[in-house]
Amino acid sequence: MTDTLPIQDLLTLVRPQIERLNREIVADLAPGHEEMAPLVEHVGGFRGKQLRPVMTFLSGMAVRGASHGGCLGDDVITVAKVVELLHTATLVHDDVLDSANMRRRIPTVNQMAGVEVAVLLGDYIYAKAFHMAVQLPDPAAARWLAETVRVICQGEITQVLHRFDFAWTEARYFTVIAEKTASLYAAACRLGGHYSIGTENSGGLEGRLRALEEYGLELGIAFQIVDDCLDLDGDERVVGKSLGTDLSKGKITLPLLYLMRRGPGEAERLRAVLGKSEAEALKRLRTEFPLEHAVAYAMEEAQRRIAKARASLSQLPAGPARDALHHLAGFVLQRRL
Amino acid sequence: MTDTLPIQDLLTLVRPQIERLNREIVADLAPGHEEMAPLVEHVGGFRGKQLRPVMTFLSGMAVRGASHGGCLGDDVITVAKVVELLHTATLVHDDVLDSANMRRRIPTVNQMAGVEVAVLLGDYIYAKAFHMAVQLPDPAAARWLAETVRVICQGEITQVLHRFDFAWTEARYFTVIAEKTASLYAAACRLGGHYSIGTENSGGLEGRLRALEEYGLELGIAFQIVDDCLDLDGDERVVGKSLGTDLSKGKITLPLLYLMRRGPGEAERLRAVLGKSEAEALKRLRTEFPLEHAVAYAMEEAQRRIAKARASLSQLPAGPARDALHHLAGFVLQRRL
Repeated sequence: MTDTLPIQDLLTLVRPQIERLNREIVADLAPGHEEMAPLVEHVGGFRGKQLRPVMTFLSGMAVRGASHGGCLGDDVITVAKVVELLHTATLVHDDVLDSANMRRRIPTVNQMAGVEVAVLLGDYIYAKAFHMAVQLPDPAAARWLAETVRVICQGEITQVLHRFDFAWTEARYFTVIAEKTASLYAAACRLGGHYSIGTENSGGLEGRLRALEEYGLELGIAFQIVDDCLDLDGDERVVGKSLGTDLSKGKITLPLLYLMRRGPGEAERLRAVLGKSEAEALKRLRTEFPLEHAVAYAMEEAQRRIAKARASLSQLPAGPARDALHHLAGFVLQRRL
Repeated sequence: MTDTLPIQDLLTLVRPQIERLNREIVADLAPGHEEMAPLVEHVGGFRGKQLRPVMTFLSGMAVRGASHGGCLGDDVITVAKVVELLHTATLVHDDVLDSANMRRRIPTVNQMAGVEVAVLLGDYIYAKAFHMAVQLPDPAAARWLAETVRVICQGEITQVLHRFDFAWTEARYFTVIAEKTASLYAAACRLGGHYSIGTENSGGLEGRLRALEEYGLELGIAFQIVDDCLDLDGDERVVGKSLGTDLSKGKITLPLLYLMRRGPGEAERLRAVLGKSEAEALKRLRTEFPLEHAVAYAMEEAQRRIAKARASLSQLPAGPARDALHHLAGFVLQRRL
């Protein structure tokens, strides 16, 4: 199996579902409310590659092997919408936390309408997502996703509380990125499978659901490691956001953990760089530290995670959706998602 | 029936339930997580008179007349916890929106741990509350409360977007305060009744549930009107928060709507006061406008709402819980809750 399919080819399989999701999601958010409509439409502009719903749909197909015939029930569509809305809510609040002005080349909500509206709109989108989840007859998604959002927030809070914490360890780093980032990918995959097979079959197929969950978790961890590398050595024009923000905020990511441990005094040398302005911190890191080695070290970990994600797919029946999940994992490492 | 029972007497009826709620709610929020525990405990200090859970419990008793024997099932306790947690989450985010430093004489989360932690902790509490709601076998609470939080945010956003809007009307004011404040009281009462009688009986008792919902809605509207009056003519030591913030932020409340309409040019005169510092805006309002008349006008509306809330109680069987709800409504007008 080659690893170099263009991403468009993978998405062909789920294009009808993604198109339906995009048609319905804005209307779902603001049913005819004149104040909310422009805000909700603006947030629609943050839409990226929609990795999470793509993974939900592919998981829904992959769990059934060839028996889905390209069709997925309405409940899988609903789950994918809920996952995408929860992700959107976290983006709106992340932009508040980072005082970010731009996202995907349009103004953030806090930039456009102020911090107050941004905090409230994030809450609004969370509530709407939960409301959609609790309309499903099977409560699994509502339960799993409420717990997932709690875990995301716990991870984010832990990260904020441990900025500039030079006692930070790789183990804690992996726990936090699993919580704040990978848990939603894991949920997207597991629940896509769960709602595709229906509750009556889910007992016998628990092994497949666990495999999808692990696939999402490992892929999500790799995604965050790559994201953390991009903040240090990415190309601003390609990444589409300003670099060095983690450094400036004192976030201890995997490449920094590598640099801290290189020898005695290294943590102290690094402490002098963190907390500077983004440009200065980046410049000093690039000139005074072996950044290439640090990034290579982190990317090796990301590769191992992707290999693990792919290995878990062996629990699923062979077929084009499983192949697509295999290929999709490779795009995370291409660092342009 | 006298209207002047001390509030302690009313609360006797639900003391066991309130004590259980307070025992369990902090442990529920942070099961053994070392980072979250101190934050969650701090937020426990925001606890006030716990009007909403009191109303949930009294509603649960009142809907069944004498047949509850002072007992309420676990599901009613869970609903009351969820309502209290959702209220707590809105407080944590409100303090971010208002850049408030103190709440109930202790530091706000944003003051103590920063805006980032406060935004994330509010999200965490929302998620935890929804997670508790979706554990209930009957999905009514999860559905009703997710929609309620959406409506609360919609009301708050509308209010923010219409600051300094001199085309604001009483009708829109009432819609917004019903959304942002009264909807949670309505949910607290309706769901207390709903989970007390159980799903099997709820069809036949829909009239009682609607009565409880209306009671909560009208009481909540009255509560917000009184709160808006207190911001203008309260005693800072009694109210426990700084006054004049609505004026300073350009919130057009009922007393201001009265003043704006007194005659030609009044809206313009008022515009010169709004947006000033809190102390200056208050001082000018008190010296240049008939503030007493404006507050009396608003308080008459609050009284009408309380009368309406009480009238709806006639749909419920007579008994001590119904009497307690009747009296409780009066405390809202005493302006010290």
